[in-house]
Amino acid sequence: MEALSPSRLAALRDELSGIATADDAATLKLKSRDFFWFSPILKPLLDDKRADLVVMPRTKDEVLRVAAACARHRVPLTVRGGGTGNYGQAVPLAGGVILDMSGLDRIVHVVPGAGRFEAGARLLDIDRALRPERWELRFHPSTRKQATIGGFTAGGAAGCGSCTWGQNADPGAVIAVEVATVEEEPRLIELKGRDILKVLHAYGINGIITEVEVPLAPWHPWAERIAAFPTLAAAARFGFALTAAEGIAKKEVGVFDRRIPPLFKRIAPLIRPDQAMAIVMVSEPQGAALAEIVADHGGSIVYERSADEAEAAAFEGRGAMPPLYEYTWNHTMLHALKVEPDITYLQVRFPEKSELALVEALDQAFGDELLLHLEFQRRFGRVFVSGLPLLRYRSPARLDAVMRQIEAMGGAVSNPHTYVLDNAGWKRTDAPQPEFKAVADRYGLMNPGKLKAWRVA
Amino acid sequence: MEALSPSRLAALRDELSGIATADDAATLKLKSRDFFWFSPILKPLLDDKRADLVVMPRTKDEVLRVAAACARHRVPLTVRGGGTGNYGQAVPLAGGVILDMSGLDRIVHVVPGAGRFEAGARLLDIDRALRPERWELRFHPSTRKQATIGGFTAGGAAGCGSCTWGQNADPGAVIAVEVATVEEEPRLIELKGRDILKVLHAYGINGIITEVEVPLAPWHPWAERIAAFPTLAAAARFGFALTAAEGIAKKEVGVFDRRIPPLFKRIAPLIRPDQAMAIVMVSEPQGAALAEIVADHGGSIVYERSADEAEAAAFEGRGAMPPLYEYTWNHTMLHALKVEPDITYLQVRFPEKSELALVEALDQAFGDELLLHLEFQRRFGRVFVSGLPLLRYRSPARLDAVMRQIEAMGGAVSNPHTYVLDNAGWKRTDAPQPEFKAVADRYGLMNPGKLKAWRVA
Repeated sequence: MEALSPSRLAALRDELSGIATADDAATLKLKSRDFFWFSPILKPLLDDKRADLVVMPRTKDEVLRVAAACARHRVPLTVRGGGTGNYGQAVPLAGGVILDMSGLDRIVHVVPGAGRFEAGARLLDIDRALRPERWELRFHPSTRKQATIGGFTAGGAAGCGSCTWGQNADPGAVIAVEVATVEEEPRLIELKGRDILKVLHAYGINGIITEVEVPLAPWHPWAERIAAFPTLAAAARFGFALTAAEGIAKKEVGVFDRRIPPLFKRIAPLIRPDQAMAIVMVSEPQGAALAEIVADHGGSIVYERSADEAEAAAFEGRGAMPPLYEYTWNHTMLHALKVEPDITYLQVRFPEKSELALVEALDQAFGDELLLHLEFQRRFGRVFVSGLPLLRYRSPARLDAVMRQIEAMGGAVSNPHTYVLDNAGWKRTDAPQPEFKAVADRYGLMNPGKLKAWRVA
Repeated sequence: MEALSPSRLAALRDELSGIATADDAATLKLKSRDFFWFSPILKPLLDDKRADLVVMPRTKDEVLRVAAACARHRVPLTVRGGGTGNYGQAVPLAGGVILDMSGLDRIVHVVPGAGRFEAGARLLDIDRALRPERWELRFHPSTRKQATIGGFTAGGAAGCGSCTWGQNADPGAVIAVEVATVEEEPRLIELKGRDILKVLHAYGINGIITEVEVPLAPWHPWAERIAAFPTLAAAARFGFALTAAEGIAKKEVGVFDRRIPPLFKRIAPLIRPDQAMAIVMVSEPQGAALAEIVADHGGSIVYERSADEAEAAAFEGRGAMPPLYEYTWNHTMLHALKVEPDITYLQVRFPEKSELALVEALDQAFGDELLLHLEFQRRFGRVFVSGLPLLRYRSPARLDAVMRQIEAMGGAVSNPHTYVLDNAGWKRTDAPQPEFKAVADRYGLMNPGKLKAWRVA
C-alpha cells in the first residue's frame, strides 16, 4: 500500500468532524503500540510503526462514519482496544488511522446468564458493573483492568476462569458478535453460533467488532491462595488434581517453578528459593477442601486472602498486594521483564496423558534457560495444561531451536514471536476467515501487512 | 437381636414424652418402606419389615433424647429421611424405632457459596428457599421433592447437576456433617474434610446425621430441552460432546434408547418409535449453542421450556409436564414400572475411553431385554458415563447372568438388588467406616441386619 499523502489525510479529517481525534506525537506513539515488546524479535520490527491519526469515536454511528471515510479515501485502519495484545495486533503496520474503541464502553443489556457489551468496555469495568447482580465474565486475561471485550474477542483466548470455563473459541463461549464492515456504506453484521469464528482471534482485521454478547458466569466469592511445594513436579501434580476436582469451584490454577517467585517482588519473601509455587483462586467456602489437596502433594499454604479483600484489591486497588491474577498468564512475563530485561516467553500446550512427564522433561532439558510456568485449564472435556514458560533469550536462532526442541519432545508451540498471519495461518483454520475478510474488509484496509499473502480481490 | 418385648417398648415410650410418635399400622407401614420394591429381589425380602414405633422429633434435643432412650433400652433404631432410597436404607430389618428426621428441616445458615441445613430439610424446599439469593444445591436426585439432605448424604451419590459438579463423595462436595452418636449420653460429632467419608453413603448406620453443610452452586436460569436422535449411538455421542463442552453451562444430560420414551406418557408423543432421546437442562442463554451440538449429531429439538416455566413446574407444580428431571436418574424406572410391572434396573459405570463402544455393544448383546439409559457426569476431571439401564426381569439367575455379562464386557456394575453391606463391602472402602461405627453406634443398634458381619465389640 502506498504511503498516506497529506492531502488524503486532510480529506479524511474533513469527514470526521465532530469525532475526537489526536495526532500529537505522544498520542500517536502511545496508541500505535501494544505489548509486542515482550518479544525481542517483534520489538525491533514494530517499535517505530506509527499511525497518522488516532480517532476516538463515542458511538456506533461515529464508528460507521470512520469506516466509511477510510474506505472512501483508502486509508489503512487499525482497530484498538486496551492495547494489551502481545503480537502487534494494535500496531498499524502501514500507518493510517488507529480506531480507538475504548469510548464505546456501554453495557447494552444484561439478562440472567448473559450480557451484551460495546466492544470498548473494559473487562474489569464490566465485572464491577455486574457485581451487584452477582454475575461476572467467565474469564479474563491477567490484563483485566486494561483489556476490552472487543479486543479480547479479536485477539484473546483464555485467562483466569479457563480452569472452569475453557476458552473463548469453545462452543457456547460467545453468543454473538456485531461487526461493522469497512466500505463506503458500512453495514453491521450480526454473527452468531459458529459464524463467530469468522472474527474470533482474527486480530481485528475481519471487520470492526462493535458489540459482543457472552454467557456470564455466576459470581463466587473468590478467595486467593498461594501454596509452596517442594518440587515443580509436586506443584504440577497438585495443579492437575485441583483442576480435575469438579467439587471445588475455582477460577485460577497457575503453577510456577522455583526460579519464578524470586522475580515477583511482593511474593518472593513468601517462597523459599527451592520451592515451586501455585497461585489459586477458589470459592471461599472451599478453602478447607483446597488445603487438603495442597497437603496431599506435600505443599503448604503460605498466603491467603479473603474474597472480600481480593475483590477490594481488584476493584479498588486496595492493599499492598495486587490481585493475584496479576501474576498469572502473561503478567508473569511483565513482572519478570522488570527484573531480567533479556527474558522472553513461549506458548506451549502439553500433550494429553503425558502433560506432567513433559513438564519434568522440559525442566531437565533446558536447565536455567527455561523457567516453567503452567496454566491449568478445562477444555474438550478434560484437564488441559498450557504453559507460558519464560525463556532467557540468547538469539533468534536459539529461540527457534528451543521451540523446535520442545515440539520434538511432544509440546505444541504457538510462536508468539511473529506478527503476521497468512491465509494458511489464520488462527481459526476451521472457520472461513478469509472468505469473511473479503466481505468485511473488501479493500484490504484493515491493518495491511498483518496478512502475508492477502491481495484485494 | 432378640425381638422387642412390649415392656421394653413401653419403657422406651415413657422416655419420649413430648416427642411426636405414631404406631398405627398405616403409619408403621408407610414409614418402614422406601423404594426397595424397584427390585424384584428385594421386594419379597423387605416387604413385611415393620418398625414398632415411628418417632418424629422436631429439634436436635429431641433427636438426642431418642438416641439416648434407644441406647438405654437397646432398641433398634433406623433413621429415615424422605424414604427415597432404593436398597432398603429406610427399612427397619429388626423392627424397633423409625426415627423420621423430616421435622428437622431448618436452614442453619447460608453464606455466599455455602449453606448448612438440618438433616430433614427436603432438597426442593432448600432450593426454593435459596432461590431469592440465587444459590441452589449443586445436585439433587430425581426425587428432589421428597428427598432430604441428610438422606442424600447417607445414601445418595449423584443426580441432576452431576454433569457439572460430580458426586457428593468427590473432594469438596460436602463441607461438614454433624452426627449424633447412639449411646446413653449421645454426643454430637462434627466431621469435616475427608472425615466426612466415615458417614457418607454408609446408609444411615454410622450415627444419626443431624446437619449437613455443603457448597452451593450459583443459580442459572435452567431451561429444559428434549432432543430426538436417529440412533442411540448418535444420542450417546451427543451426550458425551455436550458434557465435554465447558462453554455450555448445564445441569442435566440424560440419554434414553428408543424403547424408553414410549414408557413416558407425556413424552411418548414427542418421539418417534425409532428415535433415541436426550433430556437436557442448560442455562437459558445457551439454547442456541446447545442446538448446534444437537444438529451436529443429527438430532432435532422436539420440546423446549423456558427457565421460568421449568422453575414453575418444579417449585409450584404448574403446567401439564412435570419438571423434566422427574424422567431422569431413578425416575426413569418409576415411570417404566407403571407401564411394565416386570421391569427392573441396573447400575453400570462405563469404562473410560470406550464408553460409547460399550453402549453399542450392550445394545446389540441384549436386544429388548435391556433398555439403555445413560446419565452423563463430570468426575475425576473427565466425562464420566454411568447408566441406569432398565431390565426386563426374568429370574434371579438371569439377573445375575446379565450383571456378570456386562462386567465381562467391561462395564462396572453396582448391584442394586441387595440391602446388606458388610465390613468388606462398605460403600466407601477408602474411609474408616467400620472404625467410626464403633464410635457412633457402640451397641450396634442402627438398623441391625444391614451389615452382614457386624458384631458389637
